[in-house]
Amino acid sequence: MGFKASGVTAGIRANRADMALLLSDAESTCAALFTSNRVAAAPVVLSRKRVATGNCRGVIINSGCANACTGRQGFEDAVEMARLAADAVGIPEEMMLVKSTGTIGRRLPMKRVARGKEMAKAALSCDGGSDAAKAIMTTDTVPKEAALKVRIGGSDVTIGGMCKGAGMIYPNLATMLCYITTDAEINADDLHEALKVAVNKSFNRISVDGDQSTNDTLVVLASGASGGRVPTPPHSDYDVFVDALSAVAKALATKIVEDGEGATKFVTVAVEGAVSDEDALMVARAVANSALFKTACFGADPNWGRVICAAGYSGAEIDEMKAEIFFDDICVYDKGDIADEHAQGKLAEVMKQRAFTVTIKLNLGTGSDCVYTSDFSLDYVKINSEYTT
Amino acid sequence: MGFKASGVTAGIRANRADMALLLSDAESTCAALFTSNRVAAAPVVLSRKRVATGNCRGVIINSGCANACTGRQGFEDAVEMARLAADAVGIPEEMMLVKSTGTIGRRLPMKRVARGKEMAKAALSCDGGSDAAKAIMTTDTVPKEAALKVRIGGSDVTIGGMCKGAGMIYPNLATMLCYITTDAEINADDLHEALKVAVNKSFNRISVDGDQSTNDTLVVLASGASGGRVPTPPHSDYDVFVDALSAVAKALATKIVEDGEGATKFVTVAVEGAVSDEDALMVARAVANSALFKTACFGADPNWGRVICAAGYSGAEIDEMKAEIFFDDICVYDKGDIADEHAQGKLAEVMKQRAFTVTIKLNLGTGSDCVYTSDFSLDYVKINSEYTT
Repeated sequence: MGFKASGVTAGIRANRADMALLLSDAESTCAALFTSNRVAAAPVVLSRKRVATGNCRGVIINSGCANACTGRQGFEDAVEMARLAADAVGIPEEMMLVKSTGTIGRRLPMKRVARGKEMAKAALSCDGGSDAAKAIMTTDTVPKEAALKVRIGGSDVTIGGMCKGAGMIYPNLATMLCYITTDAEINADDLHEALKVAVNKSFNRISVDGDQSTNDTLVVLASGASGGRVPTPPHSDYDVFVDALSAVAKALATKIVEDGEGATKFVTVAVEGAVSDEDALMVARAVANSALFKTACFGADPNWGRVICAAGYSGAEIDEMKAEIFFDDICVYDKGDIADEHAQGKLAEVMKQRAFTVTIKLNLGTGSDCVYTSDFSLDYVKINSEYTT
Repeated sequence: MGFKASGVTAGIRANRADMALLLSDAESTCAALFTSNRVAAAPVVLSRKRVATGNCRGVIINSGCANACTGRQGFEDAVEMARLAADAVGIPEEMMLVKSTGTIGRRLPMKRVARGKEMAKAALSCDGGSDAAKAIMTTDTVPKEAALKVRIGGSDVTIGGMCKGAGMIYPNLATMLCYITTDAEINADDLHEALKVAVNKSFNRISVDGDQSTNDTLVVLASGASGGRVPTPPHSDYDVFVDALSAVAKALATKIVEDGEGATKFVTVAVEGAVSDEDALMVARAVANSALFKTACFGADPNWGRVICAAGYSGAEIDEMKAEIFFDDICVYDKGDIADEHAQGKLAEVMKQRAFTVTIKLNLGTGSDCVYTSDFSLDYVKINSEYTT
């Protein structure tokens, strides 16, 4: 594919892999999306600037420290971390992106970063992706990877990715990081547009706790090594690429929800028949973020009233005399009529499953959308109420 | 004061007082504020209509069933509940307001309601306020009352209130109900304006879990029995009345937070120096609703990064190089500089207290606001994940 990766233990965290390096054999086009939090971490500020050129060679990433809210020194630390990594592998420093994840308001231990980049360089390998995926984990319980092969321009094109999110040993934020590589050949502008489409229905449709990190970043690098050229749209090969990129992004995004802090359930909240797609998304997000709905999911408590309540305060148009609510195929509320005892009993059974879908049919129009969320468990509170150090 | 009240056990809930009656000796002016949830419970829809006349005599309230999402039959049940209560005490049915709190999507047990209103009528007494405050409780652990006496127009005027919120045996919603009575003489329009001012800085500044109920209602009745007449503003006596009403509302609202479901902490989130008051409120609300901040409060985890993170995604203007964050008088973040180890240690001590204040100084302008919130505890999840029945 034209990429090498590694994951090593630099000592930033106790006895855990904590530094990853991703390197393209030659110059790659790149596109990235970053947190919209106005308090952006130093590596976000730096990488946002560098990715604007549309070209890069590598990414150096550490876990265990977010390097956020660390002032001017934190920014200088991010620059230095990228410079050290770029020097080690012999590329211009502007071609190296830098990412951090972990506790906010802590300085990077630069001596360990310096040692780590040497180790990361030495460990670089074509098969290093899984090690890298492990090194960027925080409270994640499993590494998260996904890959897909499609035929573009007569060549086999691979799109592979890794991400982390929703877990910390230093409990802090559900920081999300995602790196996708492809050996497709695509210009940076088209890649950026493709990424926006892919992310809109994947990472922008998940919720663990409703807190948006200072460090969220999604980077995609395209090496062109496959020879498969993605043409500028409109073109069917572009659509094939976007669909494949979307599928990889969705696979990675849902893995974050499945591994959400303390999560025991994977819940799909689907909204149909809204006045507009925007309204549908508002309803889906309100339900998916409702602490009361999420605790009910944890306990498999058939308290469907919390669904329509959240829909009601979402800001979207809703007429309770037209709405219907389903849990999988069980109708619990039908335009003012309440489910009978029998359906209530079946509802509890549906909610005991590891995964289920709540469908809200508003019957007002043709707008629809879908959000993926986890439940709110005792372990979520335990994980996030423990001491940071 | 010109009011009687009672609280009785009608059998709507198991072995718990569950029906309250509030009656004015003569016609009172009234004003009310209701949930802005688009899915409003039947009693909300009915009472909203009746309160628009500006006059009423009484309120009948049940706990244990919200009578929300119950369709046309639910509305007829609300009308019937009010009619039964009005007949019992011999007033026109349009002069009786009706309120319900409890599980959504359940029909009212009308036979028990009928029996309850007879009991409630028989129990009416000038000292019945405390019994009524107990009968409207759901998962509340304590009844909530507050009263104040002020001098208006040469007379002693009393303002007394009760409320419930943030607790259920049938875990459902943090439904909030509040009833305030006064023997002041005031016209309905002025009372409505005064109520809006009072609520804006009290009930509109609290958060337990960010879920807005289908049943939230605040009603104020003014009997005029004291002879103290509140003049139409501008007038200093009107201001005295508004200040007193605000103080009673704030005392009641903070009691809801103190008794929040599973709450172990009372946290004041104060924002200063925002570009506008609107921005200050956005920041205060984002912090007060952050699941990560609230779990950190539960564990006294000195993870102040979650405060600035929530401020960053609030939508308000923020410059991290100008902002400061305090926990009581401990500065943990100072315009890019991180608190030293010593301050971090003191921070944990501050957070171990039953109540503390987080102050966010944005240093951008003169906007300020303040929100009161509780922590997010293991008991919150336990209470809300249990079976509804």
